[in-house]
Amino acid sequence: MLVQGKHYRTIWLKDGDDSIVQAIDQRLLPHRFVIEDLRSVAEVVRAINEMHVRGAGLIGAAAGYGMYLAAKEAAHTENFDEHLLQSVNRMKASRPTAVNLEWAVNRQLIAIGEGQNVVEKIAIAKETATRIADEDAGFCKSIGLYGVKLIEEISKRKAGEPVNILTHCNAGWLAFTDFGSATSPIYQAFDHGINVHVWVDETRPRNQGARLTAWELLNHGVPHTIIADNTGGHLMQTGKVDLVITGADRVTRNGDVANKIGTYLKALAAKDNNIPFYVAIPSSTIDWHIKNGLEEIPIEQRGEEEVKYIQGIVDKKITSVLLSPAQSPAANYAFDITPSRLITGLITERGICQATEAGLLGLFPEQLEDK
Amino acid sequence: MLVQGKHYRTIWLKDGDDSIVQAIDQRLLPHRFVIEDLRSVAEVVRAINEMHVRGAGLIGAAAGYGMYLAAKEAAHTENFDEHLLQSVNRMKASRPTAVNLEWAVNRQLIAIGEGQNVVEKIAIAKETATRIADEDAGFCKSIGLYGVKLIEEISKRKAGEPVNILTHCNAGWLAFTDFGSATSPIYQAFDHGINVHVWVDETRPRNQGARLTAWELLNHGVPHTIIADNTGGHLMQTGKVDLVITGADRVTRNGDVANKIGTYLKALAAKDNNIPFYVAIPSSTIDWHIKNGLEEIPIEQRGEEEVKYIQGIVDKKITSVLLSPAQSPAANYAFDITPSRLITGLITERGICQATEAGLLGLFPEQLEDK
Repeated sequence: MLVQGKHYRTIWLKDGDDSIVQAIDQRLLPHRFVIEDLRSVAEVVRAINEMHVRGAGLIGAAAGYGMYLAAKEAAHTENFDEHLLQSVNRMKASRPTAVNLEWAVNRQLIAIGEGQNVVEKIAIAKETATRIADEDAGFCKSIGLYGVKLIEEISKRKAGEPVNILTHCNAGWLAFTDFGSATSPIYQAFDHGINVHVWVDETRPRNQGARLTAWELLNHGVPHTIIADNTGGHLMQTGKVDLVITGADRVTRNGDVANKIGTYLKALAAKDNNIPFYVAIPSSTIDWHIKNGLEEIPIEQRGEEEVKYIQGIVDKKITSVLLSPAQSPAANYAFDITPSRLITGLITERGICQATEAGLLGLFPEQLEDK
Repeated sequence: MLVQGKHYRTIWLKDGDDSIVQAIDQRLLPHRFVIEDLRSVAEVVRAINEMHVRGAGLIGAAAGYGMYLAAKEAAHTENFDEHLLQSVNRMKASRPTAVNLEWAVNRQLIAIGEGQNVVEKIAIAKETATRIADEDAGFCKSIGLYGVKLIEEISKRKAGEPVNILTHCNAGWLAFTDFGSATSPIYQAFDHGINVHVWVDETRPRNQGARLTAWELLNHGVPHTIIADNTGGHLMQTGKVDLVITGADRVTRNGDVANKIGTYLKALAAKDNNIPFYVAIPSSTIDWHIKNGLEEIPIEQRGEEEVKYIQGIVDKKITSVLLSPAQSPAANYAFDITPSRLITGLITERGICQATEAGLLGLFPEQLEDK
């Protein structure tokens, strides 16, 4: 999407020198826009591990490009396969719980294996890395093309008055290679001249909304307003929200959604006020093996320092400040479960369906279990 | 309540020199505990206006003490009444929307008017100031004595396992002269050896929970954990909350509650998980003239800088940092309405009642309208 008027993805091969991977260093957003050169597997591993790049789709793409660099590095060693496997292990260990990371690395391994010689292996790795990134963008774009119809309909009903969309966390292009999941219908709408306005939940404790989603929308020119996470209920009570779209970290076979902590509260408020609540996901987010979100999805607990300290900018310096009494403990649950009964529908790359097993299988019949 | 092992109120006359009012300067909490001497009406007005003191009960008490200083100052002028009225106007203008402020000033005016001479007027003003502060503490204490029964019952049912209570914002002793409203049953329970643990919503954007409620509980020794406002739903889904108690800024005749933004979202989650949700209020918070909270209570909008910037401490210096893109707008609605249907009960100084007109009139029959 657009940054300072120019189109960017989150990660790409450097123009004119395809031995260098370039990526936006997201740690510094929204305060500084820095493009980082990643010249080695070590640098890719560090970028993933230290969250210069984050978000399921982007981590997968970064791993894909990392494997391309791994193949190039292995070409300069005596034992290509052994060196490649060392890189595989380092890459997989960079963020061990990221499903897309392992998936992308394995896909590359298989693809590279089919090359007849080192030159061919490198060419295949480069092509596969690009394909992984393109596919991610393609899925997100499809989500946008289906989701925009929801916005269009509301816009017609409101006779062109702004369609107010509330979103939580960052399910934007910064979490993928382009377009995003929850944001993709919004960008589609905006680019086609539909009058939209986005309420951006700041999304404590890590503030991905206020830092990343707001920055994305600002740079692409989409009208938006940052709000404290407490605010959505009031906005819905008073008719200021037409539609909620969030992303998800994991969706069960029956449509329960694990997403950033606080999503459940917004879904309750949407239900209480008859406001449509949609979750936008590429199908890679669906875990076909589990059904009950509350019982089967473990909720990550992170460090208390993310609640007690916050990072911002003062005097042009990125600074972390303590918000609470130093001795008070804090808890930091990263996700919550939104039960499918609260979800109006799921927006996927194959279309929109009900948040039910039947709904999902209608779009993904290949997941029908054998009897 | 206790601060560093010693009992404090939020405001009092200085021990050994009753010409000086002393108050905790709450702007610096939780990072610094500073007691401020207020020696003149001008200093009291500044303390109220710049929020060294805040919270309905405390503002009323501060105004009461301010009028005592006003009477003393007027005694040194040629025209006592004229000078007193000047002070009244300055005091009332210090925070024009604070109902308790005007109420306390008027009460003092009437009381002082009954003095036969200047010496007597000053004595009455001092006595009335003390009475206003004592009454505030007394109402809060009564709330605690009624509310503690709810906690006791749960504690018995849980066979002494910790009773987990979630609260939002600061309806603690810092907002009154002592005990608080929502916190009063908690302090009662703790002081009587009941095993309690408090989930403290940080309460963005002004973080009264993380700054003030956590500090209160820490100093009094009550086990507590700070959480992002997004977290309550997850905790309730997973059985980690037994009871919710909040305060209120205004309660309608039929039991709708206006309280700090985000209260409504927690009430929805409590309802969805069958968790009792109580609102603790002194009866001065009830607006007997209105019925429908959503239609009749205007919601204050505050400056966007409270959302975009946050204050914390770094290198022992209280510092404000920018959290979001500087050009992104933010909205800052201060309150939301929790409809009475989501409220299990109201805890008042006269007992606990249903959040309905009948419930409230049962405790406050003097508010029955003439036919």
